[in-house]
Amino acid sequence: MRSFNPPKRTLMGPGPSDIYPQVLQALSRPTIGHLDPLFIEMMDELKVLIKYAFQTENEFTIALSAPGSAGMEACFVNLVQPGEKVIVCRNGVFGERIRQNVERCGGIAVVVDDEWGSPVTEDKLQAAVTQHPDAVAVAFVHAETSTGALSDAQALANIAKQQNMLVIVDAVTSLGGVPLKVDEWQLDAVYSGSQKCLSCTPGLSPLTFSEKAIEKIKSRTHPVQSWFLDQSLVLGYWSGEGKRAYHHTAPVNSLYALHESLLLLQEEGLEQAWQRHALAHQQLKAGLTELGIQFVVDEQYRLPQLNAIYVPQGVDDGQVRQRLLNDYNLEIGAGLGDLAGKAWRIGLMGYGARKENVALCLQALKDVLS
Amino acid sequence: MRSFNPPKRTLMGPGPSDIYPQVLQALSRPTIGHLDPLFIEMMDELKVLIKYAFQTENEFTIALSAPGSAGMEACFVNLVQPGEKVIVCRNGVFGERIRQNVERCGGIAVVVDDEWGSPVTEDKLQAAVTQHPDAVAVAFVHAETSTGALSDAQALANIAKQQNMLVIVDAVTSLGGVPLKVDEWQLDAVYSGSQKCLSCTPGLSPLTFSEKAIEKIKSRTHPVQSWFLDQSLVLGYWSGEGKRAYHHTAPVNSLYALHESLLLLQEEGLEQAWQRHALAHQQLKAGLTELGIQFVVDEQYRLPQLNAIYVPQGVDDGQVRQRLLNDYNLEIGAGLGDLAGKAWRIGLMGYGARKENVALCLQALKDVLS
Repeated sequence: MRSFNPPKRTLMGPGPSDIYPQVLQALSRPTIGHLDPLFIEMMDELKVLIKYAFQTENEFTIALSAPGSAGMEACFVNLVQPGEKVIVCRNGVFGERIRQNVERCGGIAVVVDDEWGSPVTEDKLQAAVTQHPDAVAVAFVHAETSTGALSDAQALANIAKQQNMLVIVDAVTSLGGVPLKVDEWQLDAVYSGSQKCLSCTPGLSPLTFSEKAIEKIKSRTHPVQSWFLDQSLVLGYWSGEGKRAYHHTAPVNSLYALHESLLLLQEEGLEQAWQRHALAHQQLKAGLTELGIQFVVDEQYRLPQLNAIYVPQGVDDGQVRQRLLNDYNLEIGAGLGDLAGKAWRIGLMGYGARKENVALCLQALKDVLS
Repeated sequence: MRSFNPPKRTLMGPGPSDIYPQVLQALSRPTIGHLDPLFIEMMDELKVLIKYAFQTENEFTIALSAPGSAGMEACFVNLVQPGEKVIVCRNGVFGERIRQNVERCGGIAVVVDDEWGSPVTEDKLQAAVTQHPDAVAVAFVHAETSTGALSDAQALANIAKQQNMLVIVDAVTSLGGVPLKVDEWQLDAVYSGSQKCLSCTPGLSPLTFSEKAIEKIKSRTHPVQSWFLDQSLVLGYWSGEGKRAYHHTAPVNSLYALHESLLLLQEEGLEQAWQRHALAHQQLKAGLTELGIQFVVDEQYRLPQLNAIYVPQGVDDGQVRQRLLNDYNLEIGAGLGDLAGKAWRIGLMGYGARKENVALCLQALKDVLS
């Protein structure tokens, strides 16, 4: 066995996305202690940068030391007590995962279903909220990674707020790629992932809780079932007040990388980043249309950063992806769940939302499909 | 705000330890997809390397995508059902954390207490096992990071095995630093951390389950409360059989780093690594004795890789650590829990167990204390 030397791929699947070269450099800087004063300064900056990305002033804004699916779980184990009802909107794989999370922490999930590839329907949520005024929260996926559909987070949050319910949002694929305004839209708990539109390496989950969410945690009568994800314990480590309390050893180098990727986002500016994603999507769409390829999602709900397209009839899904990978070092994503074998997912995320990526993808697809 | 450029510290605390330069190089190699065939080959190699480090043939041997405290939690949420009894040996911070984990997943913890700085007493465990034959598992910390005490894992496992109880072991600080033989000692669930004697960056938890542990998981009647840590879901991703099922996005670059650090361990050889740790400890001990510094743990139970020593009388704990850090770029650890303010913890872990680290530490301590 020898050192692993991966090839240089162009990553245009559902994540990990193409990583900024500066992020890989930051990742390999010398490791220092997780209680080192200089590391704590870096964490303070990181909080500011995550707040900017989320567009929030929430004091509780951190990077969880585990992937987005742990970020999801952190929201439910902290905010839902056994026996409490949560309205779960499900229009893809990740909505279903939310349902499982609610039930695993003893909550009661009221599921509002929409078609795969459609956004969450406001009317259906409105009906569920009216029918279940005792629900403590509404949870939905902002940008469904399994289908490429964008839901109107602000409108959905407004419906939940009528009944004073908490709003829990999966922003794994939306953060940095499309507008997401945590404070303006009054979202209470939002989690994301490092490996999508932030173009950082995978393994971390940016997470923010509103004051209302923190109050819910503080008023719990039943202990949080997870020690690792109990955010009342983590608060002591991330809080800005002087001495940090040890909770677990932070993933030091991964946090360097996230700091760097968020710095790049701040330098570019959020709005500019959103525009860049939209532009790359338009370029990709024009080329795919020329190739006669159809999108899964209606135009108005399409995510620019994740393009789910139907595998053309008579074409072998796996063979095409294998040829793209072997001959062009290009990764595109397979379909997931109901769309397995039927769709591809082309990511234009973060650093990957560039003209050269779009050009490579279109030409390679054209070659392979011809 | 600018890119974070940490200084080059010498890390001689309780972890993260000094990282192998080759590991930092591996960390920053190009990210590839977590379902890329080449990545899956790397993961197969990684499994073999983790098995070697643990000295096990267990088919279920993986690196969990989160720190050691999540590895701990993974053992208890998977192996303990609500209402089941677990005998928990507690002789430091991490034994207490185990108790909390058992209770948070609905188990009943029967605590066997020993003094901080002492190993787990076999007689006490024997008495508890006899008194509670209905317990499903015995759990203990092999190498207590908070005190530097080593317990006899083989002897403790033997006691548990008399009553056919599962043996769950915290090997966060022991793996790679002192003998640990999972199969020979019949340990059923063992978790560790990447950032101690493996000298990899923090954030991953090597984990192994015996056949008996897997049977216990398969016979569960109550679902695992954590989705992220449900190892029956993770099995599909790490299993060697052809197509990998997506569970969560693996922390790709961190796994490159772990692969590299375990390769270095394999090249050196486990026994040679154990000897190197023992030798560095002897050198440190000789020097500390000259300085009149006392160890917390009796000689026969001392961990070579984690040396807890009393802060000399009249000396300001924090001031000394600060001067070592500021003037020598040297980190040593503070006391934890009962030993906070009373002890320092000097780590000689993995790549850090070298003559030059011992020399730097002794001379710097001598300078600062004089």
